[in-house]
Amino acid sequence: MNKKGLLIVISGPSGAGKGTICKSLLESQEFWVSVSATTRSPRNGEVEGKNYYFMTRDQFLDKIAQDDFLEHAEVYGNLYGTPKSKVIEMLNSGKNVILEIDIQGALVVKDNYPDGVFIFILPPSMEELRNRIINRGSETPESLMTRFKSAYKEINYVSKYSYAVVNDTVEVAVNKIKSIVVAEQCRVDRMKENFTYSKEGLIHEQFYD
Amino acid sequence: MNKKGLLIVISGPSGAGKGTICKSLLESQEFWVSVSATTRSPRNGEVEGKNYYFMTRDQFLDKIAQDDFLEHAEVYGNLYGTPKSKVIEMLNSGKNVILEIDIQGALVVKDNYPDGVFIFILPPSMEELRNRIINRGSETPESLMTRFKSAYKEINYVSKYSYAVVNDTVEVAVNKIKSIVVAEQCRVDRMKENFTYSKEGLIHEQFYD
Repeated sequence: MNKKGLLIVISGPSGAGKGTICKSLLESQEFWVSVSATTRSPRNGEVEGKNYYFMTRDQFLDKIAQDDFLEHAEVYGNLYGTPKSKVIEMLNSGKNVILEIDIQGALVVKDNYPDGVFIFILPPSMEELRNRIINRGSETPESLMTRFKSAYKEINYVSKYSYAVVNDTVEVAVNKIKSIVVAEQCRVDRMKENFTYSKEGLIHEQFYD
Repeated sequence: MNKKGLLIVISGPSGAGKGTICKSLLESQEFWVSVSATTRSPRNGEVEGKNYYFMTRDQFLDKIAQDDFLEHAEVYGNLYGTPKSKVIEMLNSGKNVILEIDIQGALVVKDNYPDGVFIFILPPSMEELRNRIINRGSETPESLMTRFKSAYKEINYVSKYSYAVVNDTVEVAVNKIKSIVVAEQCRVDRMKENFTYSKEGLIHEQFYD
């Protein structure tokens, strides 16, 4: 019933496996995965419009000035952002759009686009995330503790999301995300705009077509 | 993550096809479909505990007095109700429980059990429901109009539900309901109770297991 596409924001702590999940979602034709813009120079094999939209700092700042980013951030001197116009165009064409995005960016998108579906990817287990943090290799117990603390901080943001999907296996996680999309399309509060209202109430006129 | 089962309330206007959908859901082992209690006498082939729990009016009134119904109503002099204790028992055992129930009953359940998943089954199309109403055969235009009006009234209750599933084909509708259940199990607000909290926040301790 809902002709407009859904903005599906896939986010979560580093090491949870967002990237693999989004690659797999991209393979099914139901979704369009947004491509980020960046001012950093292309690495070997990176394709314009596939891996990133590469642009100069001036071009990027122009887009910021035109409010053409859903969110943007500077990381190690390079600007990264999610182009807004293309996303909105795809949503209006009825395509479900996937944004793979870090937690800070996701919260900005949530402020600008509260109708989005915000999904937090959790690592297979807390034990597993702990191991990954340990295996990343930290010399001192202090730095290990710092990594733990930042991991807790990130995990705590799950409470700002509507859904949490544990990435035990990619296939299971992807199927859960597809189920979430089907369910969101069945939500009455999303359908209402597509119903006809009247004094007698919802979809009254449709009986008299 | 959520060990407790979900109470899934399947409701909607007469002629939408709730019954067929619930029969099909029952065939998959994921669900337990609640059996209603009634004071009416069994019809040929009806099995105690399968079609209904048959009881005397006194037994039924005792259960009302013990607050052992999620909802109950009198129809043509017979009492019908949804036994509470069995439903709660199944939910606590982690089973997802299906209630197939009329709109009035569903709204009572919603008051008593807001954590339920309330799904409204819509007929394949407004046109189709209209045809069904016409084909049920009413002599006078007046009585036809009365049926239309009550159908509109029923359909309007969709706004009190979280989800609406159009019963175009039973298989598609059943798969949508299964997706809704998967999605609800991924809802953060349902998971929280299963996380460990601490001053540092969600699932902090789990890192130190």
